Amino acid sequence: MGLAGDSAVRRTGEGTWEGAVEQGWDIAGNANGGYLLTIAARALAEAAGRPDPTTITAHFLAPGHPGPVRVDAGVVKAGRRFATATGLLRDDDRPLLAVLGSFTELSGAEQGPERVDGHPPDLPPPEACAAVRATDSFPPPFMGRVDLRLHPDDAGFATGAPSGEPLVRGWFRLGDDEPLDTIGLLLAADAFPPTIFNARLPVAWTPTLELTVHVRARPSPGWLRCAFHTRYVSAGFLEEDGEVWDATGRLVAQSRQLALVPRGG
Amino acid sequence: MGLAGDSAVRRTGEGTWEGAVEQGWDIAGNANGGYLLTIAARALAEAAGRPDPTTITAHFLAPGHPGPVRVDAGVVKAGRRFATATGLLRDDDRPLLAVLGSFTELSGAEQGPERVDGHPPDLPPPEACAAVRATDSFPPPFMGRVDLRLHPDDAGFATGAPSGEPLVRGWFRLGDDEPLDTIGLLLAADAFPPTIFNARLPVAWTPTLELTVHVRARPSPGWLRCAFHTRYVSAGFLEEDGEVWDATGRLVAQSRQLALVPRGG
Repeated sequence: MGLAGDSAVRRTGEGTWEGAVEQGWDIAGNANGGYLLTIAARALAEAAGRPDPTTITAHFLAPGHPGPVRVDAGVVKAGRRFATATGLLRDDDRPLLAVLGSFTELSGAEQGPERVDGHPPDLPPPEACAAVRATDSFPPPFMGRVDLRLHPDDAGFATGAPSGEPLVRGWFRLGDDEPLDTIGLLLAADAFPPTIFNARLPVAWTPTLELTVHVRARPSPGWLRCAFHTRYVSAGFLEEDGEVWDATGRLVAQSRQLALVPRGG
Repeated sequence: MGLAGDSAVRRTGEGTWEGAVEQGWDIAGNANGGYLLTIAARALAEAAGRPDPTTITAHFLAPGHPGPVRVDAGVVKAGRRFATATGLLRDDDRPLLAVLGSFTELSGAEQGPERVDGHPPDLPPPEACAAVRATDSFPPPFMGRVDLRLHPDDAGFATGAPSGEPLVRGWFRLGDDEPLDTIGLLLAADAFPPTIFNARLPVAWTPTLELTVHVRARPSPGWLRCAFHTRYVSAGFLEEDGEVWDATGRLVAQSRQLALVPRGG
């Protein structure tokens, strides 16, 4: 079905949407958080009446599994340029995701002063990068649903040779090169292996507590170049900052997530 | 009254708190966004039954002015370690702030692997820094309510000599050296002059659309060292990333906000 179909929602009542967590978007049995967010975001965007999430935050409450889900969403303010909506994604048993976002309609003609102190990550061509494959210690994210190619320097964790730098860079596109909208960027911002895998720390997994994505622009067709980096592992938490650049070399999204670093590693 | 009094809320019903935007927390007539967030956060913390916001996001809907406000807040999930709450701060006329946060009770004994790739900003002592004072072009934030001392290299914007780097570093403490809790850190994360003032771009003001703060630890008493930096001014937006370090040299909060860069500057 692709992401568009697998994240689709249908309004079933005042402030209520139904959708489904589809098979194949999981990592070790739990649905990818960015994928869950795309489902919730589609409901919020409909509630907001605008397609593009300018800034959206999700708090992860419980793991998602394949099956029907519901989104309760409402608009708290609809202004001229932005509409702000809140919502809750839940399955039959419990809430999975609390979401707050401001939506707009991007024209692509947004103007203003520009100052860009950064650049897309320098990556070998996709065919020279490392496709993410299963190992005993790393079940790959949603095989076939997305196409991830890691910078060879950042792929060593999968074979027991982490780089030592909590940095993960790589290419991203949807399976079958499905076109990606701004809600799809939310998935790109949470699809890569955790930076901590490259840090040579005794940490096996870092559950995400919260993810915020800022969307600057609609991505042009083609591969996205992504980079994720962690600077502070402290007091039981880490942040992971992401940048997503489109094929024209434009910054289309920034992300930051806060994850737990389980005590005792 | 200090921040504790000026951000206090009182539960007036099921899921409803009352408070007030007090005089003196404004910049050019509009209440500081971080100050508004402290009011909302106190209500959410009470709803959550935990005092410390681990990660909290506010979307700014309308400017706040002195007068009574109400917070409608509720818990979406209360887990063992975190409770997640949402809320809306409004005045008599309209919603001002939509908030989503996860709260905990920090013990100060949180443990885990540490890896810190950064350090507090290197600042001359507070008495050798620039106290933020009024000029024709820069009305200072909440005179007397907070004590801000800017790094001399970052203070030139106030006298028409911006540094050229969208960077603002300085010391922060509350007036009368009032003790600061983790909710007070939300104010510290939004109290400094905008980084864009130092960027030599034709931008007069950058209204904040959204602010997210991650709190790592309760701050020890004394001055906080803060640094705010912008890397991407593009497509009509900019992000501002902040770090707040306490007197013991520990990272106590990280922040990121998304602000609008008005078209045409």
